[in-house]
Amino acid sequence: MPVAPHITEAMASSSFIRRMFEEGILLKSRFGADQVYDFSIGNPDLEPPEKVALMLKEMGASPQKGCHGYMPNAGYPETRSAMAAKVSAEQGVALDHSRIVMGVGAAGAMNAVLKAVLSPGDEVLVSAPFFPEYAHYARNHGGNLRTVPSKDDFSLDVGAIEAAISSRTAALIINSPNNPTGKIYTRTDIEGLAAALKRSKERTGRSVILIADEPYREVVYDGREVAPVFPSWPDSVIVSSFAKNLSLPGERIGYAAVNPASPDAQGLTDAIIFCTRVLGFVNAPATFQRIVAQCWNEKVDYSSYLKRRNLLTGILDEAGIEYSLPEGAFYLFCRVPERQATSGDSGNDGAFCEHLKGKRILAVPGKGFGKPGWFRLAYCVSEKSITLSREAFKSARMEW
Amino acid sequence: MPVAPHITEAMASSSFIRRMFEEGILLKSRFGADQVYDFSIGNPDLEPPEKVALMLKEMGASPQKGCHGYMPNAGYPETRSAMAAKVSAEQGVALDHSRIVMGVGAAGAMNAVLKAVLSPGDEVLVSAPFFPEYAHYARNHGGNLRTVPSKDDFSLDVGAIEAAISSRTAALIINSPNNPTGKIYTRTDIEGLAAALKRSKERTGRSVILIADEPYREVVYDGREVAPVFPSWPDSVIVSSFAKNLSLPGERIGYAAVNPASPDAQGLTDAIIFCTRVLGFVNAPATFQRIVAQCWNEKVDYSSYLKRRNLLTGILDEAGIEYSLPEGAFYLFCRVPERQATSGDSGNDGAFCEHLKGKRILAVPGKGFGKPGWFRLAYCVSEKSITLSREAFKSARMEW
Repeated sequence: MPVAPHITEAMASSSFIRRMFEEGILLKSRFGADQVYDFSIGNPDLEPPEKVALMLKEMGASPQKGCHGYMPNAGYPETRSAMAAKVSAEQGVALDHSRIVMGVGAAGAMNAVLKAVLSPGDEVLVSAPFFPEYAHYARNHGGNLRTVPSKDDFSLDVGAIEAAISSRTAALIINSPNNPTGKIYTRTDIEGLAAALKRSKERTGRSVILIADEPYREVVYDGREVAPVFPSWPDSVIVSSFAKNLSLPGERIGYAAVNPASPDAQGLTDAIIFCTRVLGFVNAPATFQRIVAQCWNEKVDYSSYLKRRNLLTGILDEAGIEYSLPEGAFYLFCRVPERQATSGDSGNDGAFCEHLKGKRILAVPGKGFGKPGWFRLAYCVSEKSITLSREAFKSARMEW
Repeated sequence: MPVAPHITEAMASSSFIRRMFEEGILLKSRFGADQVYDFSIGNPDLEPPEKVALMLKEMGASPQKGCHGYMPNAGYPETRSAMAAKVSAEQGVALDHSRIVMGVGAAGAMNAVLKAVLSPGDEVLVSAPFFPEYAHYARNHGGNLRTVPSKDDFSLDVGAIEAAISSRTAALIINSPNNPTGKIYTRTDIEGLAAALKRSKERTGRSVILIADEPYREVVYDGREVAPVFPSWPDSVIVSSFAKNLSLPGERIGYAAVNPASPDAQGLTDAIIFCTRVLGFVNAPATFQRIVAQCWNEKVDYSSYLKRRNLLTGILDEAGIEYSLPEGAFYLFCRVPERQATSGDSGNDGAFCEHLKGKRILAVPGKGFGKPGWFRLAYCVSEKSITLSREAFKSARMEW
């Protein structure tokens, strides 16, 4: 067989998210899009800001010579400067284009960062529940993901993280607002975490790289703010994209930003550029580099996500399904209800998601996020679809 | 230091091509673009077909809902179907969209294929001289690149390849037309190679995956044709892009096509899709997937490359620099001249390229391609720039 055995094995235990998304496409073609309540994937249904289309039109109308050609692997200087302005504002730390590496989405940027810092056998820590692709990303580069349970309210358990750090720990990924819980880490959390990283460095002799994966930074509710990490911990990198805030996930446009306070900021940046190249990304797509350089600051109205969150939580309240109220992003993390029928698999999130699929509700089991007994609903779908799902949730709950 | 030691080491010995390209940008800003003869990189200076701009304009004028969103990781079905038609015509073997995986350029597709087939410690064979990034691509996924010298005319040395195959050999990469030599492998070469792969399979019990990297397939001279591989060897994959033929290298759009005759064609395709996802590519960029679905068959006039080849070879003849006449692509592989000054470093391609840089000619040493004593000139640059380089080549030769 041509496929490497370790890949066959990884595929067998692989992400339910994509499987659900792709099954959803099939179900919709069978029953009609309206009749499938697809909460499987974070594919935003808001359209990008109008300026994206205006720029595409303008680029097509007056094509610039060489505009689809290679540029330096790190990206166009203008685009890197725009990202530097964005990150400076968000982090409250001044940086220029030289600390920015454009990436093929946040996933591409994350892989370049992990490859840059991981030696074989190194560990990458993450607070669970977590975005399951991180496990693959760490393994791609010879590392292992080690999960640390969060507190019951899904905030960071800093003590547990500190206890998990050893001289093999190369990096710690945090994701705020979190996928799948919508939890936002506070400034106090981040400062506490930085103090723990400082103590760990003294203990192990190795500085843990803090990677803040922030594609949902702009999507927050109730006036919440995502705390910066650059002021608190010098060995830190921001990874982000325009997939979620500008609704451009299919265009694969993101970046990594290196903390200028890192003792080897230039070396780390150069390594991320090198890894972007040798992993075969080469550079972030040219046209969308130009677009985000102009559009990153476009105002987008995320209030519809809040409205949808409230609509969906109302439906779940009515159905009697518990959840953790998200502070940001567009995921609702829910507890698998107690089984009313007599059966041994109460709390089995895989079985419950299969049960929901029978009602044409697509949800993702919590097990893959490191939290069995829970499931995730992505509510970046139309209000109509959410409204139509009401009876399906009710009867799913009643028949469970 | 945050960077992994093996990455620091790889960077130190890394590609001269990009370094030259990026130094070229600096030199041009200093001396003016006209005064730098930049033969460093395969960044085509032909503009893409007009239809690319027309499509961008149209997409911007009438944006379709969700057109920048996620699609299945393998790509849009319409795009995959268009690629299947292209590959079927080129290979003379019928295949449909199910054997196509869209990739982030040929480099992205190649990485997904190698990750799919490589187990730790496996070898990837390549005929030298070769595109130096292959060594990184193999190492990314736990493999090692093993080079086999070509014959003196740069054709495949099938006997040497067969002798190098062992049970650790997972894959063999061929690149026709070749970068850096412009050599095209004939149908007889490919059939001979397939016979060797068949004998090796009987000997080692393992089938070597033949990966044909074909980004230059359309760029051929003197009526030459690039021989197909699908009819000759079932375990084969085509990797290609629209970087070179449609001049879209910065947009990162390519594909992998799996031979439908492969005994596990579906398993191999699924593994390439999975690896595209978990490596963080996720999918090929959405907008350019749409564009290549419509534009792949646009006629492009490559005669200017032939004209430039002939212009540059004329200049080299005059200067007294030997080269191998390319049959395709847009690279001229040249022999470092005998040193006229008394010095021990005759044949030192690094020193000669430094010497050329003193004349503001940017070339890439052959060592990185696995062929010391030679150097590469990429002639996908303006005729004017080639013409202006005449005196620089002459004096470089005279003063060497």
